[in-house]
Amino acid sequence: MRKDGRDNNQLRSIHIEPNFTIHPEGSVLISVGNTKVICSATIEDRVPPFMRGQGKGWITAEYAMLPRATPQRNIRESSKGKIGGRTMEIQRLIGRALRSVVDLDKIGERTLWIDCDVIQADGGTRTASITGAYVAMVMAFQKALEAKMINTMPVTTYLAATSVGVHPERGPILDLCYEEDSSADVDMNIVMTGKGEFVEIQGTGEEATFTEEQLASLITLAKKGINELIGYQKEIIGSGIAGQISESE
Amino acid sequence: MRKDGRDNNQLRSIHIEPNFTIHPEGSVLISVGNTKVICSATIEDRVPPFMRGQGKGWITAEYAMLPRATPQRNIRESSKGKIGGRTMEIQRLIGRALRSVVDLDKIGERTLWIDCDVIQADGGTRTASITGAYVAMVMAFQKALEAKMINTMPVTTYLAATSVGVHPERGPILDLCYEEDSSADVDMNIVMTGKGEFVEIQGTGEEATFTEEQLASLITLAKKGINELIGYQKEIIGSGIAGQISESE
Amino acid sequence: MRKDGRDNNQLRSIHIEPNFTIHPEGSVLISVGNTKVICSATIEDRVPPFMRGQGKGWITAEYAMLPRATPQRNIRESSKGKIGGRTMEIQRLIGRALRSVVDLDKIGERTLWIDCDVIQADGGTRTASITGAYVAMVMAFQKALEAKMINTMPVTTYLAATSVGVHPERGPILDLCYEEDSSADVDMNIVMTGKGEFVEIQGTGEEATFTEEQLASLITLAKKGINELIGYQKEIIGSGIAGQISESE
Amino acid sequence: MRKDGRDNNQLRSIHIEPNFTIHPEGSVLISVGNTKVICSATIEDRVPPFMRGQGKGWITAEYAMLPRATPQRNIRESSKGKIGGRTMEIQRLIGRALRSVVDLDKIGERTLWIDCDVIQADGGTRTASITGAYVAMVMAFQKALEAKMINTMPVTTYLAATSVGVHPERGPILDLCYEEDSSADVDMNIVMTGKGEFVEIQGTGEEATFTEEQLASLITLAKKGINELIGYQKEIIGSGIAGQISESE
Amino acid sequence: MRKDGRDNNQLRSIHIEPNFTIHPEGSVLISVGNTKVICSATIEDRVPPFMRGQGKGWITAEYAMLPRATPQRNIRESSKGKIGGRTMEIQRLIGRALRSVVDLDKIGERTLWIDCDVIQADGGTRTASITGAYVAMVMAFQKALEAKMINTMPVTTYLAATSVGVHPERGPILDLCYEEDSSADVDMNIVMTGKGEFVEIQGTGEEATFTEEQLASLITLAKKGINELIGYQKEIIGSGIAGQISESE
Amino acid sequence: MRKDGRDNNQLRSIHIEPNFTIHPEGSVLISVGNTKVICSATIEDRVPPFMRGQGKGWITAEYAMLPRATPQRNIRESSKGKIGGRTMEIQRLIGRALRSVVDLDKIGERTLWIDCDVIQADGGTRTASITGAYVAMVMAFQKALEAKMINTMPVTTYLAATSVGVHPERGPILDLCYEEDSSADVDMNIVMTGKGEFVEIQGTGEEATFTEEQLASLITLAKKGINELIGYQKEIIGSGIAGQISESE
Repeated sequence: MRKDGRDNNQLRSIHIEPNFTIHPEGSVLISVGNTKVICSATIEDRVPPFMRGQGKGWITAEYAMLPRATPQRNIRESSKGKIGGRTMEIQRLIGRALRSVVDLDKIGERTLWIDCDVIQADGGTRTASITGAYVAMVMAFQKALEAKMINTMPVTTYLAATSVGVHPERGPILDLCYEEDSSADVDMNIVMTGKGEFVEIQGTGEEATFTEEQLASLITLAKKGINELIGYQKEIIGSGIAGQISESE
Repeated sequence: MRKDGRDNNQLRSIHIEPNFTIHPEGSVLISVGNTKVICSATIEDRVPPFMRGQGKGWITAEYAMLPRATPQRNIRESSKGKIGGRTMEIQRLIGRALRSVVDLDKIGERTLWIDCDVIQADGGTRTASITGAYVAMVMAFQKALEAKMINTMPVTTYLAATSVGVHPERGPILDLCYEEDSSADVDMNIVMTGKGEFVEIQGTGEEATFTEEQLASLITLAKKGINELIGYQKEIIGSGIAGQISESE
Repeated sequence: MRKDGRDNNQLRSIHIEPNFTIHPEGSVLISVGNTKVICSATIEDRVPPFMRGQGKGWITAEYAMLPRATPQRNIRESSKGKIGGRTMEIQRLIGRALRSVVDLDKIGERTLWIDCDVIQADGGTRTASITGAYVAMVMAFQKALEAKMINTMPVTTYLAATSVGVHPERGPILDLCYEEDSSADVDMNIVMTGKGEFVEIQGTGEEATFTEEQLASLITLAKKGINELIGYQKEIIGSGIAGQISESE
Repeated sequence: MRKDGRDNNQLRSIHIEPNFTIHPEGSVLISVGNTKVICSATIEDRVPPFMRGQGKGWITAEYAMLPRATPQRNIRESSKGKIGGRTMEIQRLIGRALRSVVDLDKIGERTLWIDCDVIQADGGTRTASITGAYVAMVMAFQKALEAKMINTMPVTTYLAATSVGVHPERGPILDLCYEEDSSADVDMNIVMTGKGEFVEIQGTGEEATFTEEQLASLITLAKKGINELIGYQKEIIGSGIAGQISESE
Repeated sequence: MRKDGRDNNQLRSIHIEPNFTIHPEGSVLISVGNTKVICSATIEDRVPPFMRGQGKGWITAEYAMLPRATPQRNIRESSKGKIGGRTMEIQRLIGRALRSVVDLDKIGERTLWIDCDVIQADGGTRTASITGAYVAMVMAFQKALEAKMINTMPVTTYLAATSVGVHPERGPILDLCYEEDSSADVDMNIVMTGKGEFVEIQGTGEEATFTEEQLASLITLAKKGINELIGYQKEIIGSGIAGQISESE
Repeated sequence: MRKDGRDNNQLRSIHIEPNFTIHPEGSVLISVGNTKVICSATIEDRVPPFMRGQGKGWITAEYAMLPRATPQRNIRESSKGKIGGRTMEIQRLIGRALRSVVDLDKIGERTLWIDCDVIQADGGTRTASITGAYVAMVMAFQKALEAKMINTMPVTTYLAATSVGVHPERGPILDLCYEEDSSADVDMNIVMTGKGEFVEIQGTGEEATFTEEQLASLITLAKKGINELIGYQKEIIGSGIAGQISESE
């Protein structure tokens, strides 16, 4: 059994608070164990220069941590004057993941901005960001539908993410907290859709390696966890919207 | 009567939630009407270079807004690669204000970092930051006392801040929300102590001016508001600590 | 009596040399005691993006110090690659102050750039900058009138600034030199118009506080000093232009 | 058959030119089809601050492209003043991959710098960089052994990387050139060791997804390709060094 | 005799490999002794803002070194976030030199970008860059002629550069390698045309000076060396193009 | 005759005002025609890292222009966040030139900072900066001698600079004003010592070339001008110091 009493294939408790702040078109506070992320969705009426004139939209994400989201204070990237490599990797991942389940042709020349701001970190901030950002995005598109800015829900299926890893003593485990993540030999982030397909697999054995058998176990764990996360997203989003998202499932 | 039903000399509803996040030595979420700021206090075991070897401490503050704290999304300062003038003014103000009520000799060669992160903005973010940061700071020093890192509470009195302004129709008013602030002729931020003394007066008549009589009215309003804010801070901080802060009052 | 022989309510000697350099539309060298600032005014035929299409103008200021304006050499902000918080505060203050006495509708979609470059510093550089910049600005508008670029003098009244402070031994004093400023408990910069109204009050008790009585004394001192500064500005500007500025006074 | 005549499971022609430049401790020019990367290895006699005092070493990588490595000229990152997200992702990947096959305790407090500079790009620059950098690293460690700077070859096994992807018409393919990469639905970079274990799996379905069956096919292709690449590395490195690397295989 | 066996007035061996990479419109690898520079020429279909609407073109150059072009690894300018003074001087020099032998009116509103990337450095990188960039430029214009993008070869004459210097023991010498350059009292870079005229003379006596007699000797050496370089350029470029360049010679 | 009435071999009127500001160790305002530069010299009690432990000193220079030193306002380099190529070239030139006439062993591990701030520009700002900076430097060393910080005047000879150029109508001319400089075919800056030797020759034919005969004429003109400038420097510096500088002349 893990330190926090979970089985190896058990997620941490998850909570999504919709409409967490009043200004964004979509806003949630997602909590996955002690990890807490504010996800906001903004619809902007133009696309970046490289997309102009194609009649389709774009989705981009930004990710940041408050300085004391962590046990030690970390320096703000605005104070450093530049965005670090880890932040860039994460925000590129979030954007790619969301784009894979949206029909960009259906949103016109608009940009959906996703802001994921971690206010408390305990492992899995990037996967919590994706799971929460998905809900904020759906809420924003729902508002755009109501305002007749778009004609049809452009989201084609559900999307959630979790982490899996190989712990030196416990073996393959699901949804690592920070303490587990820092002692794991292998760390893998997996993003999947409501149709059970992969969007991203990012597995890294920092100063370690992993076998094909371990890869198979990790994927099995991730599928179980993501199924549960998507189940919870459906509850939060509600059946009305859910119907619009995926009549085909 | 104002749009939100308040009298001219009435504060918005205020709420301070202590221990809002788990990692910082001091952490509060302060809400002043719709303005919400996470204030965190961190004690670091060294001082900046210009203070070294003097045997005394330092207090410094950083201030930021989430991109969708506001009705329109604003660009992150980390993305711009530099911190704007407004942000710098505010974080210098918060730091100066807190230093005025702390005996820096009593904290040794340590730095107290204050992080004020606005998650929702509706006017008065800098004064809410000061009022909330004060509570986070006292909580952090209380922990340092309990850990015997310091011997005596270094805070000499209470400290809170509010805004006042001259509205073209309503005249002098207390605690402006964003809509009032943007239509006011004069905007003044005032920081005062538990002893009724001024720490900062920053009055600006952007594209307008104000008379000595108006100045007097504004100061009267600010004093009333700050007294109420300090009364609420005392409730939150609790009588045990309160006794340590200001035996002289 | 103060070290330099002045009474507490006495300004330092002031001198404004008009047309100090040949290229700018308005140029002065202002000396306030040993503080010397080159103030240049430039009229540019467009406004910043956020002002476009409104048919009105804008005034913006930049402030800098030569590295050896001070006893110790200070590092250029161009070498640091960014503008510091103090510089930003000052240039925002200068811009706001000037805008408060100009009818921006009368200058069309143009920007007035004010450059204040301190070549020698001995306290009060920001207030000297405002007092000098006002004269440079009037000279530039006078040239624009002569060139029929604008039809009427857009300046509505005079404007000058000074500093006041509470000295631990001498009490409230006017127009602090550097040595007085660094030992003062309270430091206040006040900007007033030719009509006796306030434009800015910025009072700070760094590691100290001040009472309502002290505030009153400081304001009285500032009013006396600013009246004298405006009297001197009128001499420099000359009666022809003076008539255009403020027929109402 | 693919446009360039290859079978789906066939690598492009590979060539590694050792000692390509004279100054670095290890230097190769790797060509994978039309992709050409100069890989240099530098041994520096210290470690970054976060590693000091642990008695072990560090490996870090930098990656860049010449402006005309590509059909369209791309702007230098030195001219932009910052390093982009893609570059950061790649250089973090290269560093992580190399560290996974080196016993950092055996190199003392030294840093191995890897520089991968793409002089001609046609897809797969990051995997070619890893495959080439591995050889440059081994050469640098061999020199350090000869100079008795270290006592034993710290490299524990071979390491190479390739890309695989799902092409809309051709299905799963190995070692994508640029034209194939830009039309592929799924793009996956895989890094493996000489022992047949995974170091990194980075699979991305930009605006697409992939099934578990496709994942299995891609992994099979990657294993075949990496085995061939490692076979070629062994030829280049030579049997003397090869023996030192992996007596256990 | 010099360490490498050359006479004082002898160039190092020179080699220019045309079409070194496949993407640029013009590409060469120039080797001057151990100094090796990749020179690429790109034709872009617009000019920088300050040139627009004049109906003529522009030529601009960028210069960089790979980190291990040198015996010690040098930090990338992209990592530093800014371009150093030496780099700026060199790229301004290359651009100016090339512009002096091109009739910019004949290329329309286009920009020729020259990229000089030093992959191995042993003194004289800036002069090798100019000599190589000239050939890359001619090749790019030749392609533009063939594509009927331009009607006539805009290059008016040949152009090459070399360095000369005063060595404390050997006196005035031609084409300094790094070891000679770092011990020379005077260092001079000279750019000349196929007509025997000067384009640039940059002579510097860092911590030393030079006489009018020494200047005369240095110029004589440079003329000899540049004549030989231009002879070699003519071989590489070929007689067809050579005829277009300079019918007047 | 030139537009301003000068002969081709005639300098503009020159004036050097010593002790222009009160804080620097050496301070002059140099005027060459309408070009005006404040030159300040600062002695700092340490050397840059690359010079430490050698027991000798260093001289470095910074150069800037006020925004309205020019007919059109130019953007501050601090606002741009980086220093341009032209500025870097000039400040490197000034530093090199001064170092060539100072025995750095005689100043101990100290840095002489030279700040050249152009307050009004009309051509020749870099050469005026060198001529003025030399005087400021001598004044600073004289103070260091008086304070017994150094034992002997480390300056070995005089140093001045001027520009020469080839005007399309007037031919070779001395000391170009801005209007002449912008129409000249060739622009050359020459720095020489009191012993008649060259320190720098920087001749550039932007979009033009020059012959060996023209080079000879330009050097003759420069020698005449620099002799006169050094004569004037001797007057300003005074015979007492002059004796210390160059007993050998």
